[in-house]
Amino acid sequence: MTETLLSSATREVVIGFDQPFVIIGERINPTGRKKLAEEMAAGKFETVVADAIAQVEAGAQMLDVNAGIPLADEPAILATAIELVQSVTDVPLCIDSSIVAALESGLAVYQGKALVNSVTGEEDRLESVLPLVAKHGAAVVAITNDESGISEDPDERFEIARRIVSRAADHGIRKDDIVVDPLVMPIGAIGSAGRQVFRIVRRLREELGVNTTCGASNVSFGLPNRTALNAAFLPMAIASGLTSAITSPLHVEMLQAVKAADVMMGNDSHCASWIARNGDSPAGEATSGRRGGREGRRRAAAS
Amino acid sequence: MTETLLSSATREVVIGFDQPFVIIGERINPTGRKKLAEEMAAGKFETVVADAIAQVEAGAQMLDVNAGIPLADEPAILATAIELVQSVTDVPLCIDSSIVAALESGLAVYQGKALVNSVTGEEDRLESVLPLVAKHGAAVVAITNDESGISEDPDERFEIARRIVSRAADHGIRKDDIVVDPLVMPIGAIGSAGRQVFRIVRRLREELGVNTTCGASNVSFGLPNRTALNAAFLPMAIASGLTSAITSPLHVEMLQAVKAADVMMGNDSHCASWIARNGDSPAGEATSGRRGGREGRRRAAAS
Repeated sequence: MTETLLSSATREVVIGFDQPFVIIGERINPTGRKKLAEEMAAGKFETVVADAIAQVEAGAQMLDVNAGIPLADEPAILATAIELVQSVTDVPLCIDSSIVAALESGLAVYQGKALVNSVTGEEDRLESVLPLVAKHGAAVVAITNDESGISEDPDERFEIARRIVSRAADHGIRKDDIVVDPLVMPIGAIGSAGRQVFRIVRRLREELGVNTTCGASNVSFGLPNRTALNAAFLPMAIASGLTSAITSPLHVEMLQAVKAADVMMGNDSHCASWIARNGDSPAGEATSGRRGGREGRRRAAAS
Repeated sequence: MTETLLSSATREVVIGFDQPFVIIGERINPTGRKKLAEEMAAGKFETVVADAIAQVEAGAQMLDVNAGIPLADEPAILATAIELVQSVTDVPLCIDSSIVAALESGLAVYQGKALVNSVTGEEDRLESVLPLVAKHGAAVVAITNDESGISEDPDERFEIARRIVSRAADHGIRKDDIVVDPLVMPIGAIGSAGRQVFRIVRRLREELGVNTTCGASNVSFGLPNRTALNAAFLPMAIASGLTSAITSPLHVEMLQAVKAADVMMGNDSHCASWIARNGDSPAGEATSGRRGGREGRRRAAAS
């Protein structure tokens, strides 16, 4: 059974095949958020702190922290953001940067076992990120692209994942500490983007035995009613084997879809969390006029 | 490519692996609807007609018609109901009865190619229903229970499906004309019910190459907020390979989840239906502050 254990100073979270799905809050990321980028570059972290608290309150079990601001001192800003977020929440963090020095400074101040986001199949990334992950005893997100870019063939992306797992083993990193990102492309541009993800996620789980994550909301980029699309995509990916996602927990429909998917996967024991969230009276009874319906009747007929 | 073609006098519907998901409206069924049962037994069909029109308007591509009322003349009532429904809508019908004489009288009046609901793996059902299906050139729902009841082992249910497909072939019924119902049990009672369905549906598609249907809303029986559970279950089953469901199209959230799942499966060409339903302005843009997000950034970095 594959389990990726992450921790803060005081709290543990497990990503796993038989665990409730883990939502990693995506909001603390200045990419495309001009005001947040300006604040962080100026050493102001009020929005970071507010986003951290709001996402945890909404149900995020982990938070992604990214400080990718062009021309800014990313290593210093990321370290400060991580220290601040750890001072106001107790969830484990995902330290997110494409700059190795920033990952290093983030890991240096982090309390607990972090998820490093990310390594790719590119040779220079493998050689720079994996030793850092091993040194800190961290876990790592493995993104399935390499020097040749992002393949539209899910089986090629799977092979990159296999290579990263193998290279990580050379550094003493167990496959339980690798969370593979199959790369979710916008379905408005690539009609097969959904099926690609479902296929690679299933192979990652069944053949490679690794946990998975993805930037879920990317799938609906450019389309109307993105929340409804994301709220369908995540349960579909979960049924295919996805065990976590970097996404926003602030959308009620999507969070509800993930919690319902936990029930459907049998990962909400006795449906206890669902019943606690939704009350124990069968308020949705009206969804079927046939109590017990088809199967009740068949069973009665068979007995 | 497996395609189940159904028709009314004037309209065709295809259930298939690369087709939009087919919703078969479940409402015309007196089981658990006391008032409807009394009306139908008394020869009153106003509710049947109203339910037919409402379900088609809401988006049902087919309608299930059931007249299972204890002590009533089911063959006569079912035939009348079918004639009436065919006079007010043009969608193909699913003729639903556990009484062979009722299936026979329904088929006798039906215009087009119907879906007969159902045959099981029980010897007497196989011997009575399959010849009827063959005689009328109909398609048939194959339910995966037999004399020993409903197995909790999805692989045993799969074997029953395989047996029905084989027996149908002896009667000249092609596997394209068999739509297998994997039997959805209430997840509040059986925690593995979801995973059972996902597994058997995948095997039915990959190994047996048949279309599938199910009484979807049964999965949430007895739990609160059933609509949200059903709205997560259907996309998950669709990702696993489910191609149709007998359910109610009257719940907006569920219908929307199915339409979103069509997009995710690549079965809504150029997302045209989704955009037509939801407007072409990206109203849901706010679901992500990161336009293009993670992959946009990675791609930019890689180029």
